[in-house]
Amino acid sequence: MLKHNVYFDGKVQSIGFERLGRRMTAGVIAPGEFHFGTDAPERMTVVSGELEVKTDGGWRAYPAGTTFEVAGKSGFDVRALKPAAYVCEFL
Amino acid sequence: MLKHNVYFDGKVQSIGFERLGRRMTAGVIAPGEFHFGTDAPERMTVVSGELEVKTDGGWRAYPAGTTFEVAGKSGFDVRALKPAAYVCEFL
Repeated sequence: MLKHNVYFDGKVQSIGFERLGRRMTAGVIAPGEFHFGTDAPERMTVVSGELEVKTDGGWRAYPAGTTFEVAGKSGFDVRALKPAAYVCEFL
Repeated sequence: MLKHNVYFDGKVQSIGFERLGRRMTAGVIAPGEFHFGTDAPERMTVVSGELEVKTDGGWRAYPAGTTFEVAGKSGFDVRALKPAAYVCEFL
């Protein structure tokens, strides 16, 4: 029922689950910069620490308690200066 | 740096990390009832879904966005009716 996902040599790991028919993951991003492709649109909520997301205007910080959304069939560059935890909902 | 933890035949799984010298985990609890012992005191924050914790007065619900603390060298009974995600800080 729960699924362990490992990316980037273990620097990003998450636990996948499903609730009310919607897929989600709870995960942790170790320090580094990573590119993720998307299939479904995603809503990412930072739940501990801080993530930064690359935008046209440079890196934008998302501290714990904030959320960003990513279009489907696209991708995003994210980086963490310290380990940060997130919840990802597939929309 | 990140550590995958598996409990109760995979029904509870978490990713352990450390930030600012403090140990934390981000994890998911599948439907069921589970007993956790504590060594250090813990602060549990529900970040998706809802957890219930057994108290002298019965089960008490902690929906996403709420937090409960557990004394060290003790333990707690927690249950989930649907999968729920949490961040645990070791204090």
